[in-house]
Amino acid sequence: MGEISVPALRNAATQLRIDSVRATSEAGSGHPTTCLSAAEIVAALFFAEMRYDPKAPQNPDNDRFVLSKGHAAPILYAAWAEAGLFPREELLKLRRIDTDLEGHPTPRLSFVDVATGSLGQGICAAVGIALNARRIKSDYRTYVLLGDGEMAEGSVWEAGNLALHYKLDNLCGIIDVNGLGQSQATQFDHDMDQIAARWKAFGWHTLVVDGHDIPALLAAFKEARTASGRPTMVLARTLKGKGLSAIEGKDGWHGKALKKGKETDDAIAELEKQFVPNAPRTVIQQPPISNRPAERVDYAKLPKPAYKLGDLVATREAWGAALAAVGTVDERVVALDADVKNSTFSDKFEKAHPDRFFEDFIAEQVMVGAAMGLAARGAVPFPSTFACFLTRAADFIRMSGISFVNVKLTGSHAGISIGEDGPSQMALEDLSMMRSVPDCAVLYPCDAVSTERLVAAMAQHKGLAYMRTSRPKTPVTYGPDEVFPIGGSKTLRQSGEDVATVVGVGVTVFEALKAYDQLFTQGVHIRVIDAYSLQPIDAATLVAAGEATKGRIITVEDHYPSGGLGDAVSEAVASAGFAVRRLAVREIPRSGQPEELLDRYGISAKHIVEAVKKVL
Amino acid sequence: MGEISVPALRNAATQLRIDSVRATSEAGSGHPTTCLSAAEIVAALFFAEMRYDPKAPQNPDNDRFVLSKGHAAPILYAAWAEAGLFPREELLKLRRIDTDLEGHPTPRLSFVDVATGSLGQGICAAVGIALNARRIKSDYRTYVLLGDGEMAEGSVWEAGNLALHYKLDNLCGIIDVNGLGQSQATQFDHDMDQIAARWKAFGWHTLVVDGHDIPALLAAFKEARTASGRPTMVLARTLKGKGLSAIEGKDGWHGKALKKGKETDDAIAELEKQFVPNAPRTVIQQPPISNRPAERVDYAKLPKPAYKLGDLVATREAWGAALAAVGTVDERVVALDADVKNSTFSDKFEKAHPDRFFEDFIAEQVMVGAAMGLAARGAVPFPSTFACFLTRAADFIRMSGISFVNVKLTGSHAGISIGEDGPSQMALEDLSMMRSVPDCAVLYPCDAVSTERLVAAMAQHKGLAYMRTSRPKTPVTYGPDEVFPIGGSKTLRQSGEDVATVVGVGVTVFEALKAYDQLFTQGVHIRVIDAYSLQPIDAATLVAAGEATKGRIITVEDHYPSGGLGDAVSEAVASAGFAVRRLAVREIPRSGQPEELLDRYGISAKHIVEAVKKVL
Repeated sequence: MGEISVPALRNAATQLRIDSVRATSEAGSGHPTTCLSAAEIVAALFFAEMRYDPKAPQNPDNDRFVLSKGHAAPILYAAWAEAGLFPREELLKLRRIDTDLEGHPTPRLSFVDVATGSLGQGICAAVGIALNARRIKSDYRTYVLLGDGEMAEGSVWEAGNLALHYKLDNLCGIIDVNGLGQSQATQFDHDMDQIAARWKAFGWHTLVVDGHDIPALLAAFKEARTASGRPTMVLARTLKGKGLSAIEGKDGWHGKALKKGKETDDAIAELEKQFVPNAPRTVIQQPPISNRPAERVDYAKLPKPAYKLGDLVATREAWGAALAAVGTVDERVVALDADVKNSTFSDKFEKAHPDRFFEDFIAEQVMVGAAMGLAARGAVPFPSTFACFLTRAADFIRMSGISFVNVKLTGSHAGISIGEDGPSQMALEDLSMMRSVPDCAVLYPCDAVSTERLVAAMAQHKGLAYMRTSRPKTPVTYGPDEVFPIGGSKTLRQSGEDVATVVGVGVTVFEALKAYDQLFTQGVHIRVIDAYSLQPIDAATLVAAGEATKGRIITVEDHYPSGGLGDAVSEAVASAGFAVRRLAVREIPRSGQPEELLDRYGISAKHIVEAVKKVL
Repeated sequence: MGEISVPALRNAATQLRIDSVRATSEAGSGHPTTCLSAAEIVAALFFAEMRYDPKAPQNPDNDRFVLSKGHAAPILYAAWAEAGLFPREELLKLRRIDTDLEGHPTPRLSFVDVATGSLGQGICAAVGIALNARRIKSDYRTYVLLGDGEMAEGSVWEAGNLALHYKLDNLCGIIDVNGLGQSQATQFDHDMDQIAARWKAFGWHTLVVDGHDIPALLAAFKEARTASGRPTMVLARTLKGKGLSAIEGKDGWHGKALKKGKETDDAIAELEKQFVPNAPRTVIQQPPISNRPAERVDYAKLPKPAYKLGDLVATREAWGAALAAVGTVDERVVALDADVKNSTFSDKFEKAHPDRFFEDFIAEQVMVGAAMGLAARGAVPFPSTFACFLTRAADFIRMSGISFVNVKLTGSHAGISIGEDGPSQMALEDLSMMRSVPDCAVLYPCDAVSTERLVAAMAQHKGLAYMRTSRPKTPVTYGPDEVFPIGGSKTLRQSGEDVATVVGVGVTVFEALKAYDQLFTQGVHIRVIDAYSLQPIDAATLVAAGEATKGRIITVEDHYPSGGLGDAVSEAVASAGFAVRRLAVREIPRSGQPEELLDRYGISAKHIVEAVKKVL
C-alpha cells in the first residue's frame, strides 16, 4: 500500500478544481461550483481511499464510485484524467458532440456504471452495486457521492431503508453539503444536525466532517470500513464554489460556467496559488487480483415448456415458473420485487434461488435503481411488480435506457382485465412508457408457453427488456416446440379469403379469436395475429397481412391508445401506406368484472366484430 | 359539542368491522384484514375527532380525511354509511360495475378528494389539502391514514420534509402499524422505536399509541391539535385482522375476502359479540359555518400579448410571465416548483404572488401530489419542473387522471434542443406520458404569444392539462389577436399547390418553416401546420390537409416516436385512411449543440426536405 500524503491530496484537489473550471469555461456551460465543493472529497476517494486499476475501470474487483450528483461530471472526468486513464487535454472537449465527456455522465464512458443527472438515482444504483459485491463474493467497496439538495428526493430514503435491510457495510455514501440548491438554499442549508438526525434514524453509521479537511475525510472513510452490519453516510460540510473567493458560498452561481478570458484566467490563477509546493505525487491503490470462475450460463439445459394445450394458466404464473427455471441455467439472473411477490409470482424464483432474490418492500424506485446497479456489474436482474406501479419508477426506467443496462422489467396485473380492484391497479400506459425507451424489447405474451419462451429470450437479450403479464388465466395456445423470437409475431388464423387483419396482444388475442369464430359463422374470414413482441415489432408480417387484406388493419389492446399496440402497428405499416383502426381503452375505467369491463370499454370480441364490419 | 362516549366509539368500530367483512365477502374480493386493523382509528376520527357535515362532504370547512392506504376502501365506505351519507345496504354493492364504491376510492364519490390505491400518494395529497386550508383561511384540519408498509415509498418522506418546511400543524397523519405487508412482514414489523425515530428525525410531533385503544387515540388527536408549528404523526400499533381470532395478526391474509357462508357468518357472529350493550350513539361534530367571499376570477381583465413579431423569446420565459399575469386575474391559481424556478421561470409567479408559490425542493412526487390535494380543494395549481423530471411523478400523474383533478403541469427544457446538458436532462417521452392520461389537454406552443394564450386557456380548462416549454429562444410568430383554443391548430403555410403536409410542434415548427423555404425555392409547395394542441388534436384540419395533399402527411417532433405527435396525428387521420411518416428522435441522444443535435437525430429542416422528396 502506498503512503498517503495529505499535501499530495491537497494538490490533487486543486488540480481537480482547475480542470473543472477550465473545462466548463471552454464548454461555455456546466456546473463548476458544484465541482469545487467536492474537490477534497473526490481527491481523498480517488487518490487515497479507493482501490482500483485506473487503466481498467471495469475490473470486477475495483472499488466503485457513483456520482449521484451527476451535474458534477467535470470533476469526475478530471479525476480519471488525473488517475491516468486519458490525457488531461481531452477534458477541454467537455459537452461536445465529438466526445463521450457529456454534460452528465453516461456509461458511454468506461468508468461510469449508470447514467446520473436525475438526482436521487445514483444512491439507488449504488445499493445494487453493493449487493452485487456479495453476489460475486468480491471485497470491492461502493462509494456514492450525493448532493445535499438531492436528499429531498424520496428515492434517497428508499435506498436508505434498503441498504439498512441488507446490512450493506460495503457501501459508503458521502453527501456534499454545500447548502445551496439550484434556485435557492436547500431546505436544511448547513444544519448538519437536521441532516445527521435523518441518517441516524434510518440506521446508517453517520459521520459529520468538514468536507474540505482531507485528514478528516480520510478518517471518516477509515471508520466507514469498520462499521459492521450497516452502511455509512459521511456528511461533509462544504462551500459551493470553494477555492474561488468571489463565488465561494454564494447563491446564484449554480450551473454557470465562468466566462472565458479574464474571469476564468483570474480564477485559475487564484487556484494555482493553492498548490502546496514540493508535495509528492499521489499513489493509487490497486485492487487484489481475483481468479473468480466464470458464471455458469447454459441455456441448452433449459427444459422445453410442458404445458398442455387448452389448460388455463395465467401468464404471470407461467412467468414465475419460467424465471425460476431460467435462474437454474443462468447464475447471473437475480430477482427483485416490491412486496407483491405472491401476486407477480416472483416468489417461485425466491423459493428456487433464495440467495438471488431481493425483497425491496413497497419501494419501486430503489427496486429499479438497484437493478440498474446490479446489471451494470454483470447480473441479469428481473425486477417485478404490478405494471401500474412501474410508473412509480418511470424516471429510473428512463435513466436505465440512457444507461444501456441489462435490466429485465416485468409488470403484472396489466389492464382492465384485472377487474374489481379498479383503475388505480390497472396499468394502461405501461406499454407506452416502455416503448418510449429506445431499443427496449417490449413483450406481452398471451399464454403460458409463449411466456416461458420469452422469459428465456429476455434473459439472453442484451439490453433493456419489459414483459407485461396478465392476471386472468388464459388457455395454453401454443405447442411446446413453437419458438418466439423477440421481434416476431404469430399468425393464428389466416386464409386466402381474409378481408381484414385483426392484431391482438395478451388478453385481447382471445377476444380476436372469439371474433374470428363469430365472423366465420357469418362467412367472413379475418386474419388474426398475436403481436407478442411490440418492440421491435414484426413489420414484415404486418405489412404482408395488410397487403393480403386490402390494408384493413384493426388493433385491439387492453391499454390506452397512446403509445401502445395500435401506435406500434401503425408506425410499422405506415411505409406501406396503411392506416390502422385502434380499439383501446379510451377513458378512466372503473371497478367491475373483467368481462364486463372488456365489453364496456370497447375491446371485447363484440367490438372487434363491429369494427371489422365497419371497415368492410 | 356533543359528548364523546368511548363505548359508543367501540360500537362504531365494531360496526365498521362488520360492514367491511360483509361487503368484501359479498364482493368476493377486497381487503378486509386491513380494514379490521384500522377500525378504532377510523371510528375515533369520524365519530369523535373530526368536524364535518356528513350530508355535505364537500363543505369547504369540513375537516378532511384522506385514506392513503386506499385498499382499506371498505372501511371508508362503511364510515360514511355509518355517518348517514347513504344507506348501509349500498355497501353490499362494493366493487360492482353499477356503483361508485370501487375497489379503491376515487373522487367519483363525493367524500373522496383524490384517488388512492397507489401507496405513498395520499399523504402527499394531504400536504396539499393542508396548504389549501391556509390559502382559503379555513380552520379545517387534514387527517391522513397510512399503512406501515407504505412508509417504504420515498414519496412519504418527501411529504415528511415538505410538511415540516411549511410547518403544517393543521395536518395529522396516522400510521396503522399492523406489521404485515402483502407478501410478508413489513421491514420494521412492530418495531415502533425504529418507526418513531424516523418521524422524529423528520421533525414531526410523533406519538406512539395502541391503535385499538380508543381513549389513547383520542388523547393523541387532542395532543396533535396543540402541536404548534409542525405536523403530527400518530403511530398506532395494531393487529391486521383484529377482532377475528382465527386471522388476527396472521400473515397470508392480505387482500383475501372471507368466503360467503359459514366462514363469513362465523366472523360476523364473533364481531357482533364485541358490541358493548346499551351504549349511546355517536354524535358527529359539525364544522363552523363560514361566509367566505367567492374567489376572484376575472379573465376579462387579462391583457393581450404584447410581444413583437420576430422577437426571440423562449416559451419557458413567456410561460412564467403568462402565469404571473393569470395569477393576477385568478386568485385560485397557485404555483409549485422543484428547485428549478429560475429555469422554468415560475419565479416570475413567485415574485408577483409570493403567498401562492410553494417551493417543493427537488421532490417531484410530493410536488404533484400536493398539487392534487390543492386542486381537489378548489385551487388551480401549476406545478413545474424540467419536463424530463416529471417522469419522476409519473405514477402521481396517472393517479391525477384517475382523480379527475384540475392540475396544470408544465415541463420545461424539453427535447434534444436543450443541447449540451445531455440525455438525462432531455424529455423525449413526456408527450407520450401525458397523452396517456385520458382527457388531459396536452399543449406545446412554439412561440411566446401562443404560450401566453394557452397558459390562460389551461388555467380555465376544467381538468388535467400539460404544457411543454422549450429552452431555446424562438421567434414570436403570432400576432396579439390570434386565438389558440385547446384542440385547435394553426396552418402557417398553405397554397392550392401543396404536395405534402408537414406537421410540426414546438421547436420543429421552425424547422418545418425552414424546409418550406428551401422547397419553395425549388418550386415545391408544402403545407405547414403547428399542432400546438396534441390532445385533443385538431383532426378536422389534419384530415383536410391530408385530403389536399394526396394523403402525404409528415410529422416532425423533438420527442421519441412512441406516443408523441406522429402517433397523435396518425390516429386522427386513420379514419380517413391516411398513413403518417414520422420524423422523431430514434435513439438515446448525447450532448452537443442544439442545432447539431436536431440534425444528427433526424428532425432538422434538412431531414424534412428529404422526407418530403421521398414521399413525392
